Amino acid sequence: MPSVTIKDIQQAQQRIQPYISQTPILESSLLNQWLGHRVLFKAECLQKVGAFKIRGALNMLLKAQEQGTLASHIVASSSGNHAQAVAYAATLLGKKATVFSGQNISSVKAAATRFYGAELKLYTTRKEADEQVKQAASQSDTLWVPPFNHPDIIAGQGTVVADALTQTGPVNAIFAPVGGGGLVAGTLIYAKGLNPNCAVIGAEPLMGNDAAQSVRSGVIQSLDASPNTLADGAATLAVGQETFPFLQQLDDIVEVEEERIAYWTQWLQHLLKIHVEPTSAMSMQAVSQWLKKQNHAQTVLVILSGGNIDQLKMQKIWQTNHLENLPNLLI
Amino acid sequence: MPSVTIKDIQQAQQRIQPYISQTPILESSLLNQWLGHRVLFKAECLQKVGAFKIRGALNMLLKAQEQGTLASHIVASSSGNHAQAVAYAATLLGKKATVFSGQNISSVKAAATRFYGAELKLYTTRKEADEQVKQAASQSDTLWVPPFNHPDIIAGQGTVVADALTQTGPVNAIFAPVGGGGLVAGTLIYAKGLNPNCAVIGAEPLMGNDAAQSVRSGVIQSLDASPNTLADGAATLAVGQETFPFLQQLDDIVEVEEERIAYWTQWLQHLLKIHVEPTSAMSMQAVSQWLKKQNHAQTVLVILSGGNIDQLKMQKIWQTNHLENLPNLLI
Repeated sequence: MPSVTIKDIQQAQQRIQPYISQTPILESSLLNQWLGHRVLFKAECLQKVGAFKIRGALNMLLKAQEQGTLASHIVASSSGNHAQAVAYAATLLGKKATVFSGQNISSVKAAATRFYGAELKLYTTRKEADEQVKQAASQSDTLWVPPFNHPDIIAGQGTVVADALTQTGPVNAIFAPVGGGGLVAGTLIYAKGLNPNCAVIGAEPLMGNDAAQSVRSGVIQSLDASPNTLADGAATLAVGQETFPFLQQLDDIVEVEEERIAYWTQWLQHLLKIHVEPTSAMSMQAVSQWLKKQNHAQTVLVILSGGNIDQLKMQKIWQTNHLENLPNLLI
Repeated sequence: MPSVTIKDIQQAQQRIQPYISQTPILESSLLNQWLGHRVLFKAECLQKVGAFKIRGALNMLLKAQEQGTLASHIVASSSGNHAQAVAYAATLLGKKATVFSGQNISSVKAAATRFYGAELKLYTTRKEADEQVKQAASQSDTLWVPPFNHPDIIAGQGTVVADALTQTGPVNAIFAPVGGGGLVAGTLIYAKGLNPNCAVIGAEPLMGNDAAQSVRSGVIQSLDASPNTLADGAATLAVGQETFPFLQQLDDIVEVEEERIAYWTQWLQHLLKIHVEPTSAMSMQAVSQWLKKQNHAQTVLVILSGGNIDQLKMQKIWQTNHLENLPNLLI
């Protein structure tokens, strides 16, 4: 019996629906013509806090509230979208939140985390922050919200595709980035639960390909250090015990080179007119590879996970001109 | 009797409504808190062809069709958003379109213009393209769609604010960029027609401040050469005889330095999560200056004119980090 089922995701969908945005499905007629297929995008970059992460955090806290186990102090360790998500969700439920983070957190994300109502505690290293959150979580009346390795988080992240498929109707394949694996696990559970023939494919940066390595070897592999990839949302050192069994069921995990991540980020920002982050745009490399193998016109869904990008990443993304090279992907 | 009235804009709104997108009104809770006011954004970057320009072109062609004067050949001279707008509108009405452009048109805009169905004729210089379009327009059964200097174009561009105010309700002030003046003229006519107390303020790049100079001197002033501003949508050499009388009625035209244009483009892309072009973000400098003078909390509307940005502009916009400097605009 898997730890998370389609029913858990459907319950999460009901639970969090009043508190989140219904983000739009976007598409580009130019891209569709160039590819010869239809590509639909679920724009979670337009979600509250700028990323799908609010879904898992809200699901975990609201479920605890239903069960009468919600603590009065919520803690998390993150210097990314998860920090803002936990701050937002805890404040919404009138709870105190403390986020533990490395000093290298960007000033923009620090300001947003505080704006959403959390106390932010900074430590010299991220590792130290991770130690501190464990200590804090051992205190009474305190709930720790992990970034991905928990059934309630996986079920919450699965609501992205549940909402998207309600908007789009059936599709042939779904693509999502792989960081800790929460989003892609939730996507797999829901999509295959609804239709086992729907392909579900992950994308991760080649320079941080721990998930692909783990699936190949059958054992969770860890990176020694955080890779300096454009796709910082997928720079997690290792997937979790809760997410790994689902990652093993994916149709594929495509490892993407940095140049291709920049290429697709430029093109999606240009064609869709949204500020989509490299972690999200990365999936398009998996889309183009998969479409090359298809003999008939397909409709695919791409989960655009977020839109929080710091200035250094934007500078890197736009330093060479990829827009001069029109996508001729099926050649 | 002015050449364009609020009634013309209302008729244009009815006329083009079936063919355009209803773009959303966006806002950022962080920005509102930082400013201490409410700023609403009309996101025409999400309009068909990525800019408001489709509205004027469609209005002119549909009106000609109603009056039985629509030609079978539509011509225009442009290397920007107007090229794509005319291509899209002409193809929609089943007419042949030819766009005359300088060879320096970006490959992205050239591809899009062709994708929307126009023949693209390239000339060594933009000036030569402008000569050629006049020759082409003198042929029989041919209609020339100018970029701004025509009552039907002004009325079409005015539908942006007509649609926006239906979505937002009354606001205290409205801000729009000034290029040839079509958008801001249409905005002024509609907004002041509805409520004479609503402030209407334009923004233009300081390094291409012909509109501000023209209003100061009472006579249309021309730039000698196209300024190399980030706000390329407002790099027009001179406003037109049709738009100038309306520009003289604006509450202000704010001249914006390049550094501030980059600053606001970074912040709007980050906060709103959309790919907004510098010409649009420029208006925020006028917003912040105007808000400093207000004693009570205000609600203002900013017209985000488009989202077509080439790679060199994106590289320039993101080369320094403006996101580290949180907006503290009322200090």
